[in-house]
Amino acid sequence: MSTTVNAADHVTHPNLVITADDVAAMRQAIEQPGLFQQTYQQVKASLDEQMQQPITVPVPKDAGGGYTHERHKKNQYLMYNAGVIYQLTQQQQYADYVRDMLLQYAELYPTLPIHPQKKSSNAGKLFWQGLNEAVWLVYTIQAYDAALPGISQIDRNTIEQGVLRPVALFLSEQSPHTFNKVHNHGTWATAAVGMTGYVLNEPEWVEKALYDLDKSGKGGFLRQMQDLFSPQGYYSEGPYYQRYALMPFVTFAKAIETNEPERKIFEYRNGLLLKAIDTTIQLSYNKLFFPLNDAIKSKGIDTIELINGVAIKYGLTGDPQLLSIAKLQDQILLTGDGLKVAQGIEQGLAQPYDFQTKVYGDSASGDKGALVILRQQAAGADQAVVFKATGQGMGHGHFDKLNWQFYDAGSEIVSDYGAARFLNVEAKFGGRYLPENDSYAKQTVAHNTLVVDETSHYDGNWRESEKHYPELLFFADDDQVAVTSAKVDSAYQDVSFKRTMALLKLADERSLVIDIVDAEAKNKHQFDLPVNYQGQLIETSFQLAGHSNLLKPVGSANGYQHLWLKATAEPQAGLNKVTWLNEQNNRFYSYSTLTTADTQLLFTQTGANDPDFNLRNQHSFILRVPAAKQHTFVSVLEPHGEYNPAKEYTLNGSSQLTAMTFDRQGDIDLVTLTFVDDARYLLAIANGKQVTASRQSSFSHDGKSYVLEGRFSLLQLD
Amino acid sequence: MSTTVNAADHVTHPNLVITADDVAAMRQAIEQPGLFQQTYQQVKASLDEQMQQPITVPVPKDAGGGYTHERHKKNQYLMYNAGVIYQLTQQQQYADYVRDMLLQYAELYPTLPIHPQKKSSNAGKLFWQGLNEAVWLVYTIQAYDAALPGISQIDRNTIEQGVLRPVALFLSEQSPHTFNKVHNHGTWATAAVGMTGYVLNEPEWVEKALYDLDKSGKGGFLRQMQDLFSPQGYYSEGPYYQRYALMPFVTFAKAIETNEPERKIFEYRNGLLLKAIDTTIQLSYNKLFFPLNDAIKSKGIDTIELINGVAIKYGLTGDPQLLSIAKLQDQILLTGDGLKVAQGIEQGLAQPYDFQTKVYGDSASGDKGALVILRQQAAGADQAVVFKATGQGMGHGHFDKLNWQFYDAGSEIVSDYGAARFLNVEAKFGGRYLPENDSYAKQTVAHNTLVVDETSHYDGNWRESEKHYPELLFFADDDQVAVTSAKVDSAYQDVSFKRTMALLKLADERSLVIDIVDAEAKNKHQFDLPVNYQGQLIETSFQLAGHSNLLKPVGSANGYQHLWLKATAEPQAGLNKVTWLNEQNNRFYSYSTLTTADTQLLFTQTGANDPDFNLRNQHSFILRVPAAKQHTFVSVLEPHGEYNPAKEYTLNGSSQLTAMTFDRQGDIDLVTLTFVDDARYLLAIANGKQVTASRQSSFSHDGKSYVLEGRFSLLQLD
Repeated sequence: MSTTVNAADHVTHPNLVITADDVAAMRQAIEQPGLFQQTYQQVKASLDEQMQQPITVPVPKDAGGGYTHERHKKNQYLMYNAGVIYQLTQQQQYADYVRDMLLQYAELYPTLPIHPQKKSSNAGKLFWQGLNEAVWLVYTIQAYDAALPGISQIDRNTIEQGVLRPVALFLSEQSPHTFNKVHNHGTWATAAVGMTGYVLNEPEWVEKALYDLDKSGKGGFLRQMQDLFSPQGYYSEGPYYQRYALMPFVTFAKAIETNEPERKIFEYRNGLLLKAIDTTIQLSYNKLFFPLNDAIKSKGIDTIELINGVAIKYGLTGDPQLLSIAKLQDQILLTGDGLKVAQGIEQGLAQPYDFQTKVYGDSASGDKGALVILRQQAAGADQAVVFKATGQGMGHGHFDKLNWQFYDAGSEIVSDYGAARFLNVEAKFGGRYLPENDSYAKQTVAHNTLVVDETSHYDGNWRESEKHYPELLFFADDDQVAVTSAKVDSAYQDVSFKRTMALLKLADERSLVIDIVDAEAKNKHQFDLPVNYQGQLIETSFQLAGHSNLLKPVGSANGYQHLWLKATAEPQAGLNKVTWLNEQNNRFYSYSTLTTADTQLLFTQTGANDPDFNLRNQHSFILRVPAAKQHTFVSVLEPHGEYNPAKEYTLNGSSQLTAMTFDRQGDIDLVTLTFVDDARYLLAIANGKQVTASRQSSFSHDGKSYVLEGRFSLLQLD
Repeated sequence: MSTTVNAADHVTHPNLVITADDVAAMRQAIEQPGLFQQTYQQVKASLDEQMQQPITVPVPKDAGGGYTHERHKKNQYLMYNAGVIYQLTQQQQYADYVRDMLLQYAELYPTLPIHPQKKSSNAGKLFWQGLNEAVWLVYTIQAYDAALPGISQIDRNTIEQGVLRPVALFLSEQSPHTFNKVHNHGTWATAAVGMTGYVLNEPEWVEKALYDLDKSGKGGFLRQMQDLFSPQGYYSEGPYYQRYALMPFVTFAKAIETNEPERKIFEYRNGLLLKAIDTTIQLSYNKLFFPLNDAIKSKGIDTIELINGVAIKYGLTGDPQLLSIAKLQDQILLTGDGLKVAQGIEQGLAQPYDFQTKVYGDSASGDKGALVILRQQAAGADQAVVFKATGQGMGHGHFDKLNWQFYDAGSEIVSDYGAARFLNVEAKFGGRYLPENDSYAKQTVAHNTLVVDETSHYDGNWRESEKHYPELLFFADDDQVAVTSAKVDSAYQDVSFKRTMALLKLADERSLVIDIVDAEAKNKHQFDLPVNYQGQLIETSFQLAGHSNLLKPVGSANGYQHLWLKATAEPQAGLNKVTWLNEQNNRFYSYSTLTTADTQLLFTQTGANDPDFNLRNQHSFILRVPAAKQHTFVSVLEPHGEYNPAKEYTLNGSSQLTAMTFDRQGDIDLVTLTFVDDARYLLAIANGKQVTASRQSSFSHDGKSYVLEGRFSLLQLD
């Protein structure tokens, strides 16, 4: 096996994410005032300060979060920055810093056993997990690639033999299970080894990274690209983990593009990686990711993974819409692509990003469930409905088939709790997922979908849930209406349910969400439909029986044990309403629902059985039908009015909807809506799975006959 | 009595807040692109749209919030804008609009009895309250003044005889009680009548407005300026009402300055009005007013009253610091001063506003209590301690003597509930103060100060409280320390208490609030010290007994009936800690307190006995000493660390304070603080009311002798 480094001159190093051509442009840019120069100065100043400290390469000892763990992570970033600054300044001290640190690693690494804190399946040597070791190599090989022209041949040999080759071999030949695995841990490993292969002139390593150790294509980077994303670029765990998974894909792909453009890696699978970057952006609202499954709600498009993704995609496509995302990210990378982004922003090229109404198929084939995003602008505000008809999303998945969320005017309105976790806060269960993540956040009642008999979907068993997925029945839209429907038969043994949601824009910029949930069973069950609302309760159209002097939990298990029962109501059958005020955007929201005589409402608040104060305060009301074989919930969510305490006025603080009817004729659902100004609308939706655009079906309303052409029709009545 | 209008040419009209000279400059400005032109175009477009509608001057019928009330308010703004736009465009249609509306008022007004919904003491005719009638005239007389050159002599006579004179007479001669009253209702009345006097050439009206109807000076505008503000420009009800009260003062004063500069109204009482404008700004943090007493917490410096105040003050002083406030206000007025502000901003003249550490004396004499604001910058963040040692603030006052609030890095950290009210939200008790404002928000336990035996200060009787005020004992500061102390003997029959607070900046930008509360009584009492904290509880240094399965209210009255008891604790004597995470600014806060063996902690949440969901969720912990004649609470609040979920790191999530001692030697209080990095500090405070800067007092610590010179000393120990 050759141990000679491929090339040592400045022309061909660096040549992974940053190229020699990039470096030439970057050297010019740091001489000019501007965003790129500012970043350069900040990075250099911070690095210079760190370089005052002695180099520290401790013997691995601690698990994640511990000292040696954090130190080796810090070292990878220090080396990376020193490599880049060496290229930009051509000052030898920066190459020396990378060299000196790597020489210490070259001395240490051969002495290391498997990490003492190893986790079972994927152990490392520098770190408790092989995953961290792979991430370390992804950064370190880029640092070496950049500093290489400033390192002597003899030191290069020591470094390559002592650490770079051993780590690459450890991650590949010696960890075949992880390396070949179709999983994001495998992606980091193949990215690390493949990139190292380019720098150390080991084309075989690249082949193995791409096609499995046996080069069969059963595992490896291309198989990961093939299997981990749907054709629409959706990653099954949801946007929070999609953002994380994206990093090694995009980084390695960029290195492949640099070294072997003939592989056309960014065109692979119809441009999958570029689609996945777009999808990650699309699955956000007001900068934050939709919190599907285990998700920290404050994570959004300004995470480093997506900053990389946006820069690399902009470098490839020059799409000016990406610049508006980069502006929101507010961080420029010290790379060639980062420079292009900075220049694009400074030249005023940014254009608004086109956030779309779209169906994202789930699974590699794209046909095992779907995530549907409905968007519109109404009254000057961006609205989004998130309809989750996806598969489980593995161990980080939540049990919320056909769940929905609603966003309006910058704020969450009908919300998902996300994960119960305070990331890296030691006092909160070591910063890991809290026990309440399992006992509450994952449970169905923490979401906005049907709960039967106070039990969660699939009885809270994710391995069982993984075997099933909802069926997306249809999706259709025009300028005023977007409508989608899905059903699931497997969440409960005896109960199947279907949900149809529509986002409507009526005249005068009035907007609405319509929600129709059909539950069917052989035997009688209790049907709960929770609505987790964000805001302060303003009024209900019915009497509340408040539990003013004593609070008890709603139930004893499956998340219900964490809900205080604050009030109950048994409204008269008919149209009933709950209105709240969202205090972020100062708008009112009314949820109007057609209830039967036996429908109850439960008003709840999280916090019961939470002795460590681990749960955030979250409010919900639950529509409850105590015992039925069949039930159809028909509801409308209506944003309205404005609360303006600064200017001391309140507009339309009460719901404008005065009447609603629901009727089902054959496969057609009919919803009529009447407003306080006498405007009347009829929405007809054809429910069959196959409805062609030209299908004509007739229905009657108020003694008149109508013909519905295609999937839906919204009529304004006299 | 003369009915001839003083002047009809463009030279002398308008001549109140806007002058003919202003108009000349404004006419030029609307031809140039810029902030002023934008405002002009917006106002004109909105007015043009409204002018498409027929003029509507309904017979008064409804109370506040009702149709006729809101319509007459709307009319005053429409006329005002039409007057201004007439001056700017010189297009007759705008003068005609003012004229036509006023002719309808001239027909209606003489037919009106007292308003059918009148409130007892201060009735109106157009409105249920004379206050609204005065506000109407303040706007309308400015509209008339502006439109006058475009109105024929005969119409002027009709308008003046039919409505302007009758309203002015109604507000003055026919409402002597309100007109002469030293109260903000009186200020609106005198402003309205005085300004009308200038326009209608009735110098006697101006004299009466300034000096009482009998011109004795016992009432009137000057007496109001004399009595309603303290010498430092503090208004006794607090900043929320100060902002409101300011409007007629500043508006009328500007009209006086325009018409009779020789009165030097802005120099009156050492420039009181300009000071009051500054004080209103000073009593804000991150754009929002400190929510003392009844205050809607979302009100801040962008309210129209302060936009007026800032513009008028800038017109008089040209102080470039005001421009940074105007930028935050983000609204340009269509006045001569508004134009100057717009030009100042566009010329880049804005300078940062100097938010100060300062004592604001309360009462006309300034010596009946005080509000003390301690400010500093630490770790790049603005910090503020609000220490409320003021008088009651009349009927809108809360029962919170020696209450404190703390702000850091943009957020409320230790907070005040403010008012329980959803302003103008009909469904919430007609938009008025909610019943929970009395039963909770005003009560002492809703604040951060001593509560004895679960009863509020002065037994919640504001008329009794009005008779008393705390004594400010001292205030002193240097670059690192600001310290203040006050005491109150009257809040409870048997208990007097004293509080000393210090804001400290230590090395490494470490900052702290120190809080020492001394309670003394003849008999044993229960002492509660609540801390209303904003954030998620992260950890306590002691065991919590959580009430996980059942919640009950803490008490039965005086606000305690609204607090759910979520957990209790009986920590060991010594240093005990509570840490929370503020989720707005992602910083941690640890409250460390020296407890005795019998000290308990109660963790509470608002919401009990609140069947209408009127209260916001607010969390507190209460230090409780069950039975003592004397107790000293010694506590430290320490901001620390950072929670960064986007970048996936957490720094210093635990308190850095490892030890604290408290010692009292003679009149000297000694607090020592030891941190995790072994840094040790000693703060010595001399407690006597009179301590000269040169007084030398000695104390000992750790076997060493020290000399304290003056009020305080902060030493770093070895």
